[in-house]
Amino acid sequence: MGFFTKDIVTLDDLFVHTLRDIYYAEKKIVKSLPGMIDKATDETLISGFERHLDQTQGHIERVEKVFKMHGVEANAVRCPAIDGIIEEADEISDEIEDDAVLDAALIAAAQAVEHYEITRYGTLIAWARMLGREDCAAVLAQNLAEEKATDKELTALAERKINMKSAA
Amino acid sequence: MGFFTKDIVTLDDLFVHTLRDIYYAEKKIVKSLPGMIDKATDETLISGFERHLDQTQGHIERVEKVFKMHGVEANAVRCPAIDGIIEEADEISDEIEDDAVLDAALIAAAQAVEHYEITRYGTLIAWARMLGREDCAAVLAQNLAEEKATDKELTALAERKINMKSAA
Repeated sequence: MGFFTKDIVTLDDLFVHTLRDIYYAEKKIVKSLPGMIDKATDETLISGFERHLDQTQGHIERVEKVFKMHGVEANAVRCPAIDGIIEEADEISDEIEDDAVLDAALIAAAQAVEHYEITRYGTLIAWARMLGREDCAAVLAQNLAEEKATDKELTALAERKINMKSAA
Repeated sequence: MGFFTKDIVTLDDLFVHTLRDIYYAEKKIVKSLPGMIDKATDETLISGFERHLDQTQGHIERVEKVFKMHGVEANAVRCPAIDGIIEEADEISDEIEDDAVLDAALIAAAQAVEHYEITRYGTLIAWARMLGREDCAAVLAQNLAEEKATDKELTALAERKINMKSAA
């Protein structure tokens, strides 16, 4: 952040800045998921998180591809939103005594992460189209579709199994 | 947070904790929206934010109603997630030179807020049902429906008008 100049002038600048924000977020998620896998106890939840970790690596590669297509350097900028969401997930899980209740909290935390990514990819796709970059939008749309699918899977797992175990 | 004891033992404890988290978030949004209204320049966006400010006051009242129905005190607990989302919105808007680009960023920021609320209310409703509190779930579902409607309105406004102005 400059003291005397404002760095974002055009929608293109804002698009690149937000791409750097989601790049930071995806990398942070890759660092955080192993801790969530360690804390989880339900086998289905653990394997779901493991699958999502693999998928997130793929999301990072797609974002790097978009940087390249758009002709800018693949840099991350700190994203206070994802930092806050992850901080909250860590705080709450440290406060929970019961394993099944912890699983319910971990699913909720993962869904907060998914929703952050869903909103950012939705915005990035809209801006890419406005900038005439349908090609970048198409790559970002693949990430968005996977984030939405993960969110739905987590809801189904919570409703089918985890919430019931936690209320028992 | 206690040093030696973990405060959340049951799903009921987790439900109450998360209700306190969204209570904090809704109150923070009421404090932050006037700043976003000041920064916005598009008339439709300003009136949308103003309408959302009124609506958020109503959300706080509904959350207070749920505290009462559930027989617990209406306390807020700090929610690092919403703090991070709002911090990011403030940071980015301070970096933007152009009014139309700023409007596009403000919509994106507001949608990140909406998505946080959507995921939390979704979780709270599922947990309330699991706890046999269909009555609490029904009140929370009113907030969820309004957050989803606001998110859709913001998408429509961005696509119909704001993004186009920002790319001009």
